[in-house]
Amino acid sequence: MAKLIKLFHTSTRYYSGVSGNIKARKYVLTKYFNGEPKKSDFKIVEEELPELKDGEILTEAEYLSVDPYMRAYMIGYKLPTDMIGGQVAKIIESRNEKFPVGKYVVGQFGWRTHTVCNPHKPLNQVFMPTLLLNLGSHPVSLGLGILGMPGNTSYFGLKEICKPKSGETIVITGAAGAVGSHVGQIGKILGCRVIGFAGTDEKCEYLTKELGFDHAFNYKTTNIRDALKEGAPKRVDCYFDNVGGEISSTIMNYMNHYGRVAVCGSISSYNDSILPKVSILQPAIVFKELKVEGFLVNRWINRWEEGINANLNWLDEGKLKYQEKIYHGFDNMVDALIGILKGENTGKAVVKVK
Amino acid sequence: MAKLIKLFHTSTRYYSGVSGNIKARKYVLTKYFNGEPKKSDFKIVEEELPELKDGEILTEAEYLSVDPYMRAYMIGYKLPTDMIGGQVAKIIESRNEKFPVGKYVVGQFGWRTHTVCNPHKPLNQVFMPTLLLNLGSHPVSLGLGILGMPGNTSYFGLKEICKPKSGETIVITGAAGAVGSHVGQIGKILGCRVIGFAGTDEKCEYLTKELGFDHAFNYKTTNIRDALKEGAPKRVDCYFDNVGGEISSTIMNYMNHYGRVAVCGSISSYNDSILPKVSILQPAIVFKELKVEGFLVNRWINRWEEGINANLNWLDEGKLKYQEKIYHGFDNMVDALIGILKGENTGKAVVKVK
Repeated sequence: MAKLIKLFHTSTRYYSGVSGNIKARKYVLTKYFNGEPKKSDFKIVEEELPELKDGEILTEAEYLSVDPYMRAYMIGYKLPTDMIGGQVAKIIESRNEKFPVGKYVVGQFGWRTHTVCNPHKPLNQVFMPTLLLNLGSHPVSLGLGILGMPGNTSYFGLKEICKPKSGETIVITGAAGAVGSHVGQIGKILGCRVIGFAGTDEKCEYLTKELGFDHAFNYKTTNIRDALKEGAPKRVDCYFDNVGGEISSTIMNYMNHYGRVAVCGSISSYNDSILPKVSILQPAIVFKELKVEGFLVNRWINRWEEGINANLNWLDEGKLKYQEKIYHGFDNMVDALIGILKGENTGKAVVKVK
Repeated sequence: MAKLIKLFHTSTRYYSGVSGNIKARKYVLTKYFNGEPKKSDFKIVEEELPELKDGEILTEAEYLSVDPYMRAYMIGYKLPTDMIGGQVAKIIESRNEKFPVGKYVVGQFGWRTHTVCNPHKPLNQVFMPTLLLNLGSHPVSLGLGILGMPGNTSYFGLKEICKPKSGETIVITGAAGAVGSHVGQIGKILGCRVIGFAGTDEKCEYLTKELGFDHAFNYKTTNIRDALKEGAPKRVDCYFDNVGGEISSTIMNYMNHYGRVAVCGSISSYNDSILPKVSILQPAIVFKELKVEGFLVNRWINRWEEGINANLNWLDEGKLKYQEKIYHGFDNMVDALIGILKGENTGKAVVKVK
């Protein structure tokens, strides 16, 4: 098991070493968020790692994911607790022949630099399985984005919940985010009219000029109903809701009979400690016979490869484009989380650990 | 075709006569509702009826239905327009051998005393087909209630949208209404725990003592969350929503993962001209992966008899009970509509025409 390693420590970094000698750094949430997350809600602690048992691997994080759900989820945990999240990590030691040293995995390891785990055993919070990355020549960071959890969220959420038919109209909020920008492109692949709402003119231009959205509107400067009239003259058949809020009520009131709503997130309300009030949805739901369904992507865990492969094929065929917002440094995780909750990112936001 | 008839007229009544000689009285909506409906929103007009053509029947209304949806629907019509609604009527003349004189039909004829129609052809607004009533020894008025549209709304809405499994917990708002009281009894037949919310202590007592609900709470005098903790210790799997409003947001936040919500109505907001604001639903919908679906009962028009027969069998077996609120007189339709929107009724509200 012993192998030569370089082990050194600065204020922000740990390099790889044999397990038992390695200390991981990790974020522990010590205070419940109140409004926007703050650095003082966390502490960074060191953790000794155990020697590997049979079947286990030691990984070193290269990219950590920051996703809106993190803001919402932590309400449900007893504090203090390790911060949750996906990461792309390199295997630096292995007692599992299917997971050899030098390969990359994507796993739900949380906000930490090093991890010892058995990839076949579920961790506490399984949003996605621990998988070997096999992305061809694509950057490994895509395992957290278009070829990972957000990619499958887009693929299954749109196809299985919205069930769009060619020629139908899809509206997407949070349209420039990792999921929204991906959903819109799948919508175009499926032959739909796609309208996006995003928070800056630059994002809107990216959606229409680069990604092929039919229309994109800046929700901060547009009357939503007017935008819908312009962008969706045949009204809305599918709504992919990433944001909740009043905009969603307006959109649902503009849907067609038997419209389908995939509720993927509610980012507009995540920083609120009390649920905000918005125009009631029930009249639209009943009289238009809407189907509104929330989902978490792990419900399709048994079809995970199907989604990854579909997205990989589209990517290789040039039908899917992506953009990444890369933050730098393990110590900047909180800034990155604050940033995505503010809408700083176009496409997937990740943190490059070193 | 000619037959002896008695034809006389008072200020409130028309009796039957041959078509061509008959004048129907009908309600025409002339002003959009503003808040609670008012008599001055309508006018009652006389209408000459045509001679019957082959296949047609002439009917005389015995019971007219008043239902909450009427308040909400009329927004969508160009005024002036005939008022919509179901009725139980006696066939008083017929050129259709399948619909002989003396039999009763249930049809979507609107607020009117006499109607000429071809039962095989859809009317403007088909919420339910025009059907011969065949209720055994039960009162014909049940064709508007437990053995009619509300009965099928309850049967299909609960079974097909909520899909309750034995042992699960169902919550019903508007629980003492025609649909709510029926849904709860089917829930008990299916082996579920049933909790109702209604607007008076008397209604609650009726639900638990007479209809077998496990718990019923007066939503006007109870803290909803406390009531749910008491009545639904295993939380809520199915919510049958008749009312919308803040109570629905509270209930959806108390549901179990993969809970199902049948949105049947939103009576709490029907008298509002602007959609009221309530606590946002999306966080509960996404993180609990709720499925929230609105429905109108005519989607099951091809299975109509299945529902009627199921309810009829349960009624004959003593497993379904009902109560009717009977208003009297064609001229009192508006008072009846106002009454049900205020929650005056326990069970189905109908107006006996004469």
